[in-house]
Amino acid sequence: MVPHLVTALSGPINELEQRVLDSMPAIERWFRLEWMEHTPPFYTSVDVRNAGFKLAPLNANLFPSAWHNLSPEVLPLAVQAAMAAIEKICPEARNLLIVSDSNVHSTFYLSNLAQLQQIFHMAGLNVRIGSISPEVKTTTPIELPDGRTFNIEPVTRANGRIGVAHFDPCTILLNNDLHTGVPGILEDLHQQHLLPPLHASATIRRKSNLYKAYEELAKRFGKLIGIDPWLINPMLEHLNGVDTAAEHDIVTLADATDAMLSKIKRRYKEFGIKEKPFVVVKLEHGRQGSGTMTVQDPKQLASTLQRTMFKQSGVSSVQDILIQEGVLTHERMHDAVAEPVVYLMDRYVVGGFYRVHAHSGVQDDVKLTDSTYVPLAFAETTRLPQPGTRPGVSAPNRFYMYGVIARLASLAASYELEATDPDAELMD
Amino acid sequence: MVPHLVTALSGPINELEQRVLDSMPAIERWFRLEWMEHTPPFYTSVDVRNAGFKLAPLNANLFPSAWHNLSPEVLPLAVQAAMAAIEKICPEARNLLIVSDSNVHSTFYLSNLAQLQQIFHMAGLNVRIGSISPEVKTTTPIELPDGRTFNIEPVTRANGRIGVAHFDPCTILLNNDLHTGVPGILEDLHQQHLLPPLHASATIRRKSNLYKAYEELAKRFGKLIGIDPWLINPMLEHLNGVDTAAEHDIVTLADATDAMLSKIKRRYKEFGIKEKPFVVVKLEHGRQGSGTMTVQDPKQLASTLQRTMFKQSGVSSVQDILIQEGVLTHERMHDAVAEPVVYLMDRYVVGGFYRVHAHSGVQDDVKLTDSTYVPLAFAETTRLPQPGTRPGVSAPNRFYMYGVIARLASLAASYELEATDPDAELMD
Repeated sequence: MVPHLVTALSGPINELEQRVLDSMPAIERWFRLEWMEHTPPFYTSVDVRNAGFKLAPLNANLFPSAWHNLSPEVLPLAVQAAMAAIEKICPEARNLLIVSDSNVHSTFYLSNLAQLQQIFHMAGLNVRIGSISPEVKTTTPIELPDGRTFNIEPVTRANGRIGVAHFDPCTILLNNDLHTGVPGILEDLHQQHLLPPLHASATIRRKSNLYKAYEELAKRFGKLIGIDPWLINPMLEHLNGVDTAAEHDIVTLADATDAMLSKIKRRYKEFGIKEKPFVVVKLEHGRQGSGTMTVQDPKQLASTLQRTMFKQSGVSSVQDILIQEGVLTHERMHDAVAEPVVYLMDRYVVGGFYRVHAHSGVQDDVKLTDSTYVPLAFAETTRLPQPGTRPGVSAPNRFYMYGVIARLASLAASYELEATDPDAELMD
Repeated sequence: MVPHLVTALSGPINELEQRVLDSMPAIERWFRLEWMEHTPPFYTSVDVRNAGFKLAPLNANLFPSAWHNLSPEVLPLAVQAAMAAIEKICPEARNLLIVSDSNVHSTFYLSNLAQLQQIFHMAGLNVRIGSISPEVKTTTPIELPDGRTFNIEPVTRANGRIGVAHFDPCTILLNNDLHTGVPGILEDLHQQHLLPPLHASATIRRKSNLYKAYEELAKRFGKLIGIDPWLINPMLEHLNGVDTAAEHDIVTLADATDAMLSKIKRRYKEFGIKEKPFVVVKLEHGRQGSGTMTVQDPKQLASTLQRTMFKQSGVSSVQDILIQEGVLTHERMHDAVAEPVVYLMDRYVVGGFYRVHAHSGVQDDVKLTDSTYVPLAFAETTRLPQPGTRPGVSAPNRFYMYGVIARLASLAASYELEATDPDAELMD
């Protein structure tokens, strides 16, 4: 079952789809060459927004959860990609430790852990699941509603290496974005591969690094396939050190928002788009989805800023702020908004699903903590493109396009991690 | 739909399956490390024989056809593996030329070509299909019963490179085992990757090289998982320069066959196996399936040798001959023999099918030209093993075991190709 695609939207999106399909060999070759020079994130999930006239990634989540939402049919793909990933990073690996999030009371999150354990076990590793949460003091047996069982064990450290009881892993897979900060137990590990690296964690990562890298890639990609990069890249401004408690700074922010709205309007006019523009105001730091507000009218800004944004985040009033062109979500499943999420393992798209929101407007940003969505796995046979089919009517071709955008976002994250790597030697 | 497995056969095969499953992490690690040192064949198909008490590969076909028999569900796996293969060999590749067999009047073979073209197109290459057969003088449009169309074009050579009209490929994929000899047009190509290499072709390859490499690997693998390597390796003897027209040589051959039968009997006794042993007599050279006879009684040998074997092959009476322990086929689909065939792309098992013979006995060797078989694709969800399931009752676990044996055979072919590479430098 695949969501009904809004194909009535003739216009740039179908042209884009056509371009992407026609350029498939060039695109794949381009990615191959890029991945020779740049190391893909170990795993990534990317929320894609399809506005009907433009397409954009919302993020590149380097600690993806919700792997259990992928359909069983794509599991072999994930396993094969996991084999390729492990082979590259640590071929001599025997033991993999998954470090879980602290969210271990959620059946959804536990199902995600079970799925990850299964994938890496199938790829041929001994897999154990550990927690660095002080709450997990002893081995905690988990039983899922479907009958699967596993243990969450307290992570311990000895001789500069971490592990769980009688288990010394060569590779440690973080499934925890460390949004409360990097704990000492994970720092300076002795000859253990920690993936993703600590500078990918939530408190260190800055959103603008990803968006800047993505913008550069979108330009090069646009040139490659002959499209205006705006069709795949939302415009972005940043304002550093904004004091949201100071009247003057709020005015600056409102002006910047207004300027962005004007820029979007010009673009909409150029492309004959009738939609009402909006802007997404985001904190440079902070987890995806928190500290985010959508603005259609700069006058709203001051009144809602403190209430919606900083109250939620519970952070300082002085912030680096991003002002990003909002991208509509135009896919629908019946009347509900369907937001595609694409999953990658290493450089391979292995599947995805739709977050189907029953009661959302088109402008809603992703809410990772929102429990009202229904996951709807991409049908696995639809992952392969169907050349020769008219644009806009083939689900596989649409998914291929989503996969391309998700890979661009994942590549941007790879550039970002290279640029922000504290251990990288400076090259001149 | 999966063939009914003969699970009543308690005994070594179920122990073997259990060992293989229990050793999964060790096995996968071993393969990872092997593939770091040895280049996998580009693609391989392996016929596996399951005698209920032992398991063995019959061959490692380096020019696999019948790709169309794989189920559509496994196509994404084949595409992902093809991406990995291309990335390794020639990341800058744009164009791939598939050189077809001369068998271009068979709808089956043409469907195979269409499937290969699709796989590599999906992997992001421009793919054309060429023929080096003198029969193909101009571009020949093909229309398959399912409506798919493609062209077979005459291969031309200029400046030491081959291609088809206005198409200069960087990689050439042979889907032709060159059983009539290596044609000059394929020799000494200038900066083009020819895969598999010419020394993998039928007239150059010697079966014993594969079997010798496999024997060594079976010993090491047996040690790894703690099994007698005989359980996965048929015994083998060779007699070189046998003149099958000379009475004396026939006696020697009959004696060697008799000796092999005695060795098998001792093994059967050791393992408590009640089956009647048989021997497969094969020509060292020659395509898989031709020049092969099964012998249960050495007295039959002289009488049937000329009639069945050399008449068919139409070759000289002086031959290098292999005397191999026969491995029964015990899997059944209703009453028909079901022979598993496993397909690999690069180092990945991507799928497989059963050849279901309606009217065959258990001792029949594979007959690639036999049109009475029905392909039965492995169900794609069954590719992943299910740890914890009792041995012998889980199709996925059985398939995993088949995949392991097929990978061992493919690895043996890799060793074989290294050892027989005419361009390899001698290392001391």
